[in-house]
Amino acid sequence: MEEKEISQAVIGRLPRYFRYLGELKDEGIERVSSQELSDIMRVTASQIRQDLNNFGGFGQQGYGYNVGYLYEEIGKILGLDKEHNLIIIGAGHLGQALVNYMNFERRGFLFRGIFDNNPDVCGRQIRGITVRPMQEMARFVQENDIDIAVLTIPKASAVEVAEQLVSYGIKGIWNFAHVDLHVPKGIQVENVHLSDSLMKLSYNLSSHQTEK
Amino acid sequence: MEEKEISQAVIGRLPRYFRYLGELKDEGIERVSSQELSDIMRVTASQIRQDLNNFGGFGQQGYGYNVGYLYEEIGKILGLDKEHNLIIIGAGHLGQALVNYMNFERRGFLFRGIFDNNPDVCGRQIRGITVRPMQEMARFVQENDIDIAVLTIPKASAVEVAEQLVSYGIKGIWNFAHVDLHVPKGIQVENVHLSDSLMKLSYNLSSHQTEK
Repeated sequence: MEEKEISQAVIGRLPRYFRYLGELKDEGIERVSSQELSDIMRVTASQIRQDLNNFGGFGQQGYGYNVGYLYEEIGKILGLDKEHNLIIIGAGHLGQALVNYMNFERRGFLFRGIFDNNPDVCGRQIRGITVRPMQEMARFVQENDIDIAVLTIPKASAVEVAEQLVSYGIKGIWNFAHVDLHVPKGIQVENVHLSDSLMKLSYNLSSHQTEK
Repeated sequence: MEEKEISQAVIGRLPRYFRYLGELKDEGIERVSSQELSDIMRVTASQIRQDLNNFGGFGQQGYGYNVGYLYEEIGKILGLDKEHNLIIIGAGHLGQALVNYMNFERRGFLFRGIFDNNPDVCGRQIRGITVRPMQEMARFVQENDIDIAVLTIPKASAVEVAEQLVSYGIKGIWNFAHVDLHVPKGIQVENVHLSDSLMKLSYNLSSHQTEK
């Protein structure tokens, strides 16, 4: 198959297809047309066809999409057919919220360790996982085949910790610290900047109020 | 001034400009060229000029941007010169994490109330804010001039709660529930779909590994 670069915009929409298809599947629906999918997802049918064509199509003229098959295939594209081993750096409220979120585990994202630099927190258990001191991170990453690190620490330390993690062999960083990480090529970073999201909401609120 | 629709992509980048300008300001830097800003933000200078031109420019040929002025102006565009009154629905770990995040308050996002349908949690204090039963929500929203509701509840109840909130007069919803909310025109929704973000990271990890 021809190699082509798929835009991050398309990739960003895949989890949403996956979610809607999962819901249709749970409802026992076996096939869906791009028009029906368009109606429930509130995007155009042509966008759906275009997006899915990036991965070779999946649809059949006059039949539509097989829900179960498409769900499986998008899952594979998203890498959900493999397990990922995760650690969380930062055992604060956000770190705890993520560890306690059962859906991640169902999708193959397994939290293996939690690290914190506060000695009062180390030794505590969160959902059966012991919080460890940062000094043990290097060895833990290597011995437990960890591929994703989740950063829920303040921005002041995030850049340095990210560099350490990369040197230990981490390939993916899910970054909640409010700072842009500059990592070597080949390392994947996905940011969740909560403040940015709230500011965007604030913008949309005030620009709408001005219109009144 | 001519009215024009500004794309959500541009708006999505404004908080990042605001963050970098805030850092320059904290470092005592008074002016910056689009090229310098481009170097630290790792976007092209032409993108910066284009983005800022949506709001009337701010730059002067040969001088660059006045850091303090641009920071203030972008803050105003983002609606950060006004205070927002927020409530959180869902006093779980994620709700607690958000209430404890001091930066929101610094930007004028004030958490006024927390609601939960679990009677064991109601009455507890989180950072001095009492957790209240859902039945008190309608009155609280109206008496406390609440404009933003933060949903950190499971998807099963999110759609219904969002509809209630809108009927109480809420204008903005910051939605962490893993479901798309369909709200009337004029109501702003900003989604933080954590699973989608983690799946995107998973995709980028697997597609990169395939290249090896």
